[in-house]
Amino acid sequence: MKPSLTVNLPSAHYPIYVGTSLLTQSSLLKQYVVAKQALIVTNETVAPHYLSKVQQSLSDIQCDVVILPDGEIYKDQTRLFSIYDALLRYDHHRDTTVFALGGGVVGDMAGFAAATYQRGVRLVQLPTTLLAQVDSSVGGKTAINLPQGKNMVGCFYQPAAVIMDLSALQTLPAREFRAGLAEVIKYGLLVGGDFLAYLPSLLSHFQSENFLSTETRIFSEEVLLALSHTIVRCCQIKADMVREDIHDKGGRRALLNLGHTFAHALETATGYQRWLHGEAVAIGLFCASMLSYKLGYLKTADVDLVKALLQQAKLNYLIPSDIDLDVLQALMWRDKKVQAETLPFVVMQQFGLCKLEHQITADQIKWVLSNTVIK
Amino acid sequence: MKPSLTVNLPSAHYPIYVGTSLLTQSSLLKQYVVAKQALIVTNETVAPHYLSKVQQSLSDIQCDVVILPDGEIYKDQTRLFSIYDALLRYDHHRDTTVFALGGGVVGDMAGFAAATYQRGVRLVQLPTTLLAQVDSSVGGKTAINLPQGKNMVGCFYQPAAVIMDLSALQTLPAREFRAGLAEVIKYGLLVGGDFLAYLPSLLSHFQSENFLSTETRIFSEEVLLALSHTIVRCCQIKADMVREDIHDKGGRRALLNLGHTFAHALETATGYQRWLHGEAVAIGLFCASMLSYKLGYLKTADVDLVKALLQQAKLNYLIPSDIDLDVLQALMWRDKKVQAETLPFVVMQQFGLCKLEHQITADQIKWVLSNTVIK
Repeated sequence: MKPSLTVNLPSAHYPIYVGTSLLTQSSLLKQYVVAKQALIVTNETVAPHYLSKVQQSLSDIQCDVVILPDGEIYKDQTRLFSIYDALLRYDHHRDTTVFALGGGVVGDMAGFAAATYQRGVRLVQLPTTLLAQVDSSVGGKTAINLPQGKNMVGCFYQPAAVIMDLSALQTLPAREFRAGLAEVIKYGLLVGGDFLAYLPSLLSHFQSENFLSTETRIFSEEVLLALSHTIVRCCQIKADMVREDIHDKGGRRALLNLGHTFAHALETATGYQRWLHGEAVAIGLFCASMLSYKLGYLKTADVDLVKALLQQAKLNYLIPSDIDLDVLQALMWRDKKVQAETLPFVVMQQFGLCKLEHQITADQIKWVLSNTVIK
Repeated sequence: MKPSLTVNLPSAHYPIYVGTSLLTQSSLLKQYVVAKQALIVTNETVAPHYLSKVQQSLSDIQCDVVILPDGEIYKDQTRLFSIYDALLRYDHHRDTTVFALGGGVVGDMAGFAAATYQRGVRLVQLPTTLLAQVDSSVGGKTAINLPQGKNMVGCFYQPAAVIMDLSALQTLPAREFRAGLAEVIKYGLLVGGDFLAYLPSLLSHFQSENFLSTETRIFSEEVLLALSHTIVRCCQIKADMVREDIHDKGGRRALLNLGHTFAHALETATGYQRWLHGEAVAIGLFCASMLSYKLGYLKTADVDLVKALLQQAKLNYLIPSDIDLDVLQALMWRDKKVQAETLPFVVMQQFGLCKLEHQITADQIKWVLSNTVIK
């Protein structure tokens, strides 16, 4: 099978496959197993749907399983070490392969375990959520959260392959589906042009099919094509930005954090319990557009377009009134994108033209938050 | 100040400084601090001697400290997370610098914390033991131990600089000094020739100065020159091997593990409590020479030379009689150098000509162990 896309980095090259029923393609999965050992890391929500499929695809090798509880609050030290324990309990060697079967949380945690078990074993990402397919499974960021903040411990580690099965999106809960669309909208804002212009029709199609409020959905050929196009496009944008700045050292990769400084603060302030990551990103994107407006870059009509896209995806874009804005502000100061005393934010000079603005003041952020909170 | 050596890797270049009173050279240390933040990680044995010196050298920046308990058994999850806690408590950002002030344990653990805090911050190694100076501070291996095995969790992460203060060796406990000599002997066996031939006189000089049995020592100019020469030579050998195989993927870097498969099993079997790493390496080197003899490579006289060097360094080279040899053998099978079913060991075809022998049988190892144990 031919990859839909190849990520070319100075230090690594890996294929991304996008298609239907890929998890049952034994030859595809086994292509990335070097020794006769594999560990599948998944969670209790994904396992009932897809674990047995992957196990069957890997049926003639030693294939062990770790099933984690579902949710960002479990992306922690305890569950990370439970993955190491499984690898050791079943005598996995340095040439084993870790399959991350699930969304962003599973990918981040299994990725970090693979990056660090015996100083690094092979990793294959099998993202099953829209958010993981359009964003988190590509780029090599792995991490766990600490009580003090999101992704505080992690590293950069590229997978051997990313295999995206569109069929998995048919059983994705509506909240998860909508959350993934937040990152799709982010990519639209990042590149602007045709892709941004395409999003209203995509989202309205999803709405008309009732994809945004049902827990399961059946994809027509037309929808599969649209999804495949969207996912490949998002991955391509991300791969291009990552290539120029693999270790996120202040180059273009930083632009992928559009809306994310706000989002991380929202997630941390609520103990990762209230929102899915994409839901927090939706609010963050609106905050970023307000900041870009405040700086004189975006017009009112632009902010309204961002709002309209988020609404089309049935995503909340305002900060609930019970959130303490002072706490949000304090948390952003500690966010990992902060370099010493400066407080950089990704802003949109216009759609498709983003930049890292280093001189954002506390007053400007205060204005954004107080104008984005529900009164 | 000019580096004694520069490590040139495809992805990184960093200097190694070897000299006296380097820890008090403020300008040298500060050269490697990018922002005005640093965290010194050290242990309770090293701190009373050298912590205030390093703190003074970094006096005009934010300089926080983590003091760990001393010993390999503390190279664990709990202490690793105590480093993250300190970094977060004092609001360290992505541009902070971690100084690892101590021996191999401090270097491994502070190195892994630096590699993974916020996906990687700057690391400067300040090795204070002979073992760390000749070996563990160079090459970018970082790790912690798990109860199930040594260095089971870690990654490859290169420091920005390695600054080796020979003065620190004057307060090194005798056991630690001797343990470091085990790795020096390893490098002698790896390269053979002049360097191996030089070791008997070096060791006899150390013996005559009584360096191997006193807790403090004073170095003459002559000794400083000999130490500097020895350390630079060991680092050069290691840097050359690392360069060709940074991620330890079965190339020449594997040869650095001469004696180490045995050593790790010994350490694990005794819960890291009985031996210093170098002490276990001493026994491991003798086992490796016995294995090389068993395979028909080394002669009896060669094995005797290895024995003589270890004895000169006042290092035990036999396995104590209370060690269960079956347990040792089982532990080696799980060692991280094991690829699936094969059991590779580094053997000496002759001094200066080592190779990874993949087809070592359980019977051969059994012979080695039973002929190395004290009867």
